[in-house]
Amino acid sequence: MFDSVKKLLIGKALKTEQLKSEKFNVFWGLPVLSSDAISSVAYAGQEILWVLIPAVGFMAFTDMIHAVLMIIFLLFVLVFSYRQVIDCYPNGGGAYIVAQDNLGVTPSLIAAAALCIDYILTVAVSISAGAAAITSAFPSLLPYTVIICIVLIIIMTIGNLRGISESAKAFAIPPYLFICVMVIMIVCGFVKYNILGIHPKPLYAIPNFTNTLSLLVFLRAFAAGCTALTGVEAVSNGIPSFKEPSQKNAKIVLLLLGIVAFVLFGGMSYLSAIYKAIFRPDITVIAQLAIQIFGQGSIMFYIVQATTALILIMAANTSYNGLPLLLSIIAKDGYVPRQFTKRGSRLGYSNGIMFLSLAAIILLVYFNGDTHDLLPLYAVGVFVSFTLAQTGMVLRWFRTKKGSWRHKALINGIGALLSFVATMVLAITKFWEGAWIVCILIPLLVFLMVRVKIHYNIVADELKLDITEKPKAINYEKQKNYMIIPIDSLNKTFLKSYNYAKSLTEDIIIFHVSVDDEATEKLLERWEEYGIDIPIVVKKSPYRNLIGPLVKFIESEEFVVMPGDTITVVMPQFVVKKWWQNILHNQTSLFIKSNLLKRRNIALTTLPYIINE
Amino acid sequence: MFDSVKKLLIGKALKTEQLKSEKFNVFWGLPVLSSDAISSVAYAGQEILWVLIPAVGFMAFTDMIHAVLMIIFLLFVLVFSYRQVIDCYPNGGGAYIVAQDNLGVTPSLIAAAALCIDYILTVAVSISAGAAAITSAFPSLLPYTVIICIVLIIIMTIGNLRGISESAKAFAIPPYLFICVMVIMIVCGFVKYNILGIHPKPLYAIPNFTNTLSLLVFLRAFAAGCTALTGVEAVSNGIPSFKEPSQKNAKIVLLLLGIVAFVLFGGMSYLSAIYKAIFRPDITVIAQLAIQIFGQGSIMFYIVQATTALILIMAANTSYNGLPLLLSIIAKDGYVPRQFTKRGSRLGYSNGIMFLSLAAIILLVYFNGDTHDLLPLYAVGVFVSFTLAQTGMVLRWFRTKKGSWRHKALINGIGALLSFVATMVLAITKFWEGAWIVCILIPLLVFLMVRVKIHYNIVADELKLDITEKPKAINYEKQKNYMIIPIDSLNKTFLKSYNYAKSLTEDIIIFHVSVDDEATEKLLERWEEYGIDIPIVVKKSPYRNLIGPLVKFIESEEFVVMPGDTITVVMPQFVVKKWWQNILHNQTSLFIKSNLLKRRNIALTTLPYIINE
Repeated sequence: MFDSVKKLLIGKALKTEQLKSEKFNVFWGLPVLSSDAISSVAYAGQEILWVLIPAVGFMAFTDMIHAVLMIIFLLFVLVFSYRQVIDCYPNGGGAYIVAQDNLGVTPSLIAAAALCIDYILTVAVSISAGAAAITSAFPSLLPYTVIICIVLIIIMTIGNLRGISESAKAFAIPPYLFICVMVIMIVCGFVKYNILGIHPKPLYAIPNFTNTLSLLVFLRAFAAGCTALTGVEAVSNGIPSFKEPSQKNAKIVLLLLGIVAFVLFGGMSYLSAIYKAIFRPDITVIAQLAIQIFGQGSIMFYIVQATTALILIMAANTSYNGLPLLLSIIAKDGYVPRQFTKRGSRLGYSNGIMFLSLAAIILLVYFNGDTHDLLPLYAVGVFVSFTLAQTGMVLRWFRTKKGSWRHKALINGIGALLSFVATMVLAITKFWEGAWIVCILIPLLVFLMVRVKIHYNIVADELKLDITEKPKAINYEKQKNYMIIPIDSLNKTFLKSYNYAKSLTEDIIIFHVSVDDEATEKLLERWEEYGIDIPIVVKKSPYRNLIGPLVKFIESEEFVVMPGDTITVVMPQFVVKKWWQNILHNQTSLFIKSNLLKRRNIALTTLPYIINE
Repeated sequence: MFDSVKKLLIGKALKTEQLKSEKFNVFWGLPVLSSDAISSVAYAGQEILWVLIPAVGFMAFTDMIHAVLMIIFLLFVLVFSYRQVIDCYPNGGGAYIVAQDNLGVTPSLIAAAALCIDYILTVAVSISAGAAAITSAFPSLLPYTVIICIVLIIIMTIGNLRGISESAKAFAIPPYLFICVMVIMIVCGFVKYNILGIHPKPLYAIPNFTNTLSLLVFLRAFAAGCTALTGVEAVSNGIPSFKEPSQKNAKIVLLLLGIVAFVLFGGMSYLSAIYKAIFRPDITVIAQLAIQIFGQGSIMFYIVQATTALILIMAANTSYNGLPLLLSIIAKDGYVPRQFTKRGSRLGYSNGIMFLSLAAIILLVYFNGDTHDLLPLYAVGVFVSFTLAQTGMVLRWFRTKKGSWRHKALINGIGALLSFVATMVLAITKFWEGAWIVCILIPLLVFLMVRVKIHYNIVADELKLDITEKPKAINYEKQKNYMIIPIDSLNKTFLKSYNYAKSLTEDIIIFHVSVDDEATEKLLERWEEYGIDIPIVVKKSPYRNLIGPLVKFIESEEFVVMPGDTITVVMPQFVVKKWWQNILHNQTSLFIKSNLLKRRNIALTTLPYIINE
C-alpha cells in the first residue's frame, strides 16, 4: 500500500541509465536556477529605501540609484567571476569546490556550511513571503500561515521527488511570467513618465529634509540590497544538472540571469526614483509602483501582485535544485552522511530533498512563518561563500598564471573584496537581529562535518583489507560454534530453532530465563517428557528482565569460549500477515539484539516463523 | 543515560518477590480507590439543578432532594451488590469477570470495553476539571489549559510508575482533606441555618415559577446526578491491590465509600436546598455554598476551592489503579495485547499506565481540555458495565440458589433495573452531545478484542507441539545449509562473514548487487587478486534497489533448494559507540530483514562489527 501511494505521488521508478534525459537545457534551466535571484527584486529595492529614507530623506532616491549601480556592478563581477569558475570546475560544486581546491579543507567546509544554511533560508524566506502574499489577499487565511507554508513545502517536495525535468517545466512558467510582467511595467512606467509626460502625485508623503550620506549608511543600504544577489551561486553549483554541453549552457544561463536581474532591478529602482515609492510595512514598493503606473484596482495591478507572489514561492525551488546536489558532493567527500549520495527512485537526491524540506519546515514553525524575523539570518551565508570562492579564484590565478590571468584575478579580487565588505556589513548591522545564529551555526556545522569525516576515516581504516597479504589459513574444523537457543515454552518455534542449530553444530545450549517459578517447572517437566538429551540452563531473573541473564551467562566464567570460537544466539521471530498483528507480539528479540551485538564473538540468527492468518 | 533518567524518575527496580509489600490497607485504599466517587460531589449536584431549575423552577430544590435520595438509594444498592461481587470473585475483575462468568463472552467484552472507555474518560474529565479550577484561580494560565492537563497527566504517570504504595500515600492526603473540609462545611452550614437561625439572602435570583415535575425531567435529573456513581466499580476491580485479607478490606472500603458519598452528596444537596444555590456556568454550586456559609473572600472559601481542585485532579488516579489491572486481566484472557500483563521495573503494570496516559492526552488535546465537551461521553460506559455485572449476579443467584439467594437476587435485580434505566436515559438524552461516540466505540472495541483473541488462538494452535509424539528422527547430516554472503566491497567485515560461514558449511554463495558498473569491475578484480576460490554471483539492479535482486535470486530457478534445506543470509552490522554514528551508516540490513523473513526456509544471521571510536 505504501508503495502504491508512493508511485501515485512521485511516479514510477526510473532506471539509472535514464539519468541523462532528466537534465535541462538553457530555456528550462534559466527559470529553475534563477528564480531565487530574480524574485529578490520583490524585496531588495525596498530594503534599500528602508535604510536610506530615514537617514537622508529626499536624497534617498538619488543615493538609491548609486547603491543599485554598485550592486549591479557587484552582480556582474560575480557573474563574470562565476563564469570563470564554471570554466575551471565543470563538475559543479561552486564555492565549496573552489575553496577546497585553492584554500584548503577548513575554508571549503565553511563555504559548505554557509551555503547549506542559506539554501535552507532561501526556502524558508521565500515560502513565508509567498504565504504572506496569499494571506494578504485572503486575510481570513492569516491564522493558518504556518500551515500554508507547510503545504507549499510539501507540494514542492513532491514535485522535486518526481524528478528534475518534470518539476522544471512546472516551475519554469512563473519566473517567465514574472519577467514579462515586470518588463511590461518598466516599459509602461518609462513611457508614461518620460514620453506621455504624466507625473502622478506621490502616493505617500516624502520626508521633507535632506542629509549628507555617511559612508556607514551607504554601506548599510548596499548590504540591504545585497539580498538581490543570493541566487548567483546556484548556477555554478548546478552545472551537472544541465544538458551537454553543460558548461556552456551554465555560462549562458548565468549571463542571462545577470542581464535579467540588471534589467529588473535597475528598472524597478529607476521607477521607484521617478514615482517616489517609499518603504512601508503595509504595502510593497512593487505594489506602489503598480498603482502609480496602472492605477489602483486595475487588472494589471492584480496581475503584478499575483505573479510576484508566485515567483516568491517558486524561488524556493532554486534551493531544491541546489542543496541536494551540493550535499551529494560533500557526502562523496565524507563530510556529511553518505545517504545524501543516493539517488531516489526518480533519480533525484531524495534524501537531500527531504532534509531541505524538513529543515525549512522546522525554521518556519519556529519563526511562525514570519518573513521579517527570518530576513536577518539571510544572505550572510551566501556572502561568506562568495568571499571564499573568489579569494580561492584569485589564489588560483596567481598559482597557475595562465593566459590573461592578471585581468581575471582583478575581477575575482574586486569580487572578493566587495563580498567581504558586504559580509562584514551584513553580519555587523544584523548581528543582534538574528545574524548571530548564523555566526554560531557555521562553526558548529564545520565542527560536525569534521567529526563525521573523522568517523568515516576511522571506519575505512578499520575495514581496510590488504589483499596483497594472502588470507590466513584458518582451520575451520577446529573452530567451535556454540548455538544458544533461548526457550520460553516448548513449542514449534523452539523446535524450528533446535533443528536449525542441530544441522549446523553439536554444541547447543538451551537457555531459559525464569521469571515465574511455576511456568519454569512446567517447562522442565515437559522438556523431560519430550526427551531431547540436552539439559536446559535455567537462570532466575528477579527483576523480570529477559535479556540481562543471557548477557551475564555469556560473559560468565561458567561458559568458557576459546578465542576464534563463535556464539550464535538463535531466535525465532514471528512473521505476521497484517501490520497490526505485530503489536500483539513481544518484540523482545529486538532488545536482545541491541544488547548482545556489543560483543565481538557473537552472531545473532533470526529464524522467521510465519503465522498463517 | 536513558537508564539513569528512568531510575531518577521512577526509582530503582524492584524484585518480583517484593510484590506483596506494594499493596494497600483500608486506610490508604479508601482514598486511592474512592477519590473518583467522592470528587463527583463537586459536579453531580449542580448537574441535577442544571436539569431541574429551568424545568420546574422553585420546586427544583424539593425535587432535587428526591433525585438525590434516589441516587443514594441506587448507590447503596450498588455498594451492597458489589460487596456480594467481592464475596464471589476474590481475584477482582468487577463487571468483566462477573459478566464472563454468568453471561458469556460477548457481554463480558462489552463490559470490558465500556469500563476501558470510562476509565480513560475519568482521567480526561477529572484532569480537565482540575485544570479549569487552576485556570479560574490564575486566569493568565488560561491559554495553557491543554499544556497544564498534559503536565498533570505526566506527573500522575510518573507517580504511578514509581509504584502503588508510594503513589497511594502521596495521593491519599487530598481526598482526606476534601472529606474533612466538606464535613466541616456541612456541619457549619447546618448550624448556621438551623441553630443560629441565620438565613442569608440567595446569591442569585431564583426563577419565580413552579411547574409539575414530569417523569422525563425527573429521569434526566436522576441521570445527570448519576455521574456521582462512576467510581464504585474501581473497588471491586481492585481487590488484588489490597493487603490480605483483601476481600474483607475491599468490602470495608466499599462500605466506607458508600457512607462518605452518602454524607457528602446528601449533605451538599441539603445545603443547596436551604441556601438556594443554582446552576451557573461561571461559579460552581460548591463555591456558592462556601460564600453563603463562610463569606466571600474568607480563608475557608479558598480552602474549599483549593481542596476541590485537588480532589478533582486526584480522582484521575482512581483510573490509574483500575485500568492497568483490568487490562492485565483481559490480556491474560488474550483479548488485548499480552504486553499488558507484564509488570514494569517497579511492579506496576507500566504498559497499562502508559496506555491510559496516552489515551487521556489524546482525548484532552482533541477536546481542547474542555470538561463540558467531555462530560456527555462520560458515565454511559460505567452504567453499561453496572447493568451487565448485576444482571450477571442475578443469573448467578438463580443458578446457584445458595443461602438467602432470593434476597440477594432482589438487591442485584433492583440494581440491574435501575442501572439499565440510567444507561438508557444517559445514552438517549446525551446522544447527540457526544454519547454516540461511546455507542460506536463499544462495539468497535469488542470487535477488535475478538480479532485479537482469534489471532492469539491461531498462533497458539500453530505453535502447539504434541510432546507425546516423539521427535522425528532427522538426518541432520543430510540437510544442506546454504550461506549467502552479500558483498559490497572486499573488506574486513566481509572477511568476518566469510570466516563465520566457512566454519559452519561448505555451501557458500557470494552475492553482489551491481548498481555501478565501475565499482563492480573493481570488486571483481580485487576478488580475483585475493584468491578465494568461489565465484561471485553478480546481479544488476537498474533501479538501484539493493534488496530486490537478492530476493529474486533466492526465489529463482537458478538456485535449487531441496525441502529441509536452509538458506542463511549472513550480514555484518556496524556497532558504533555513539548513537549519532548510526546516522552515518546505511541501515540496509534492516530492509533486507523485513523482505527476506517472509520465506520459511530462510535464516538471517547478523554479525556485529564493532567500530572502535
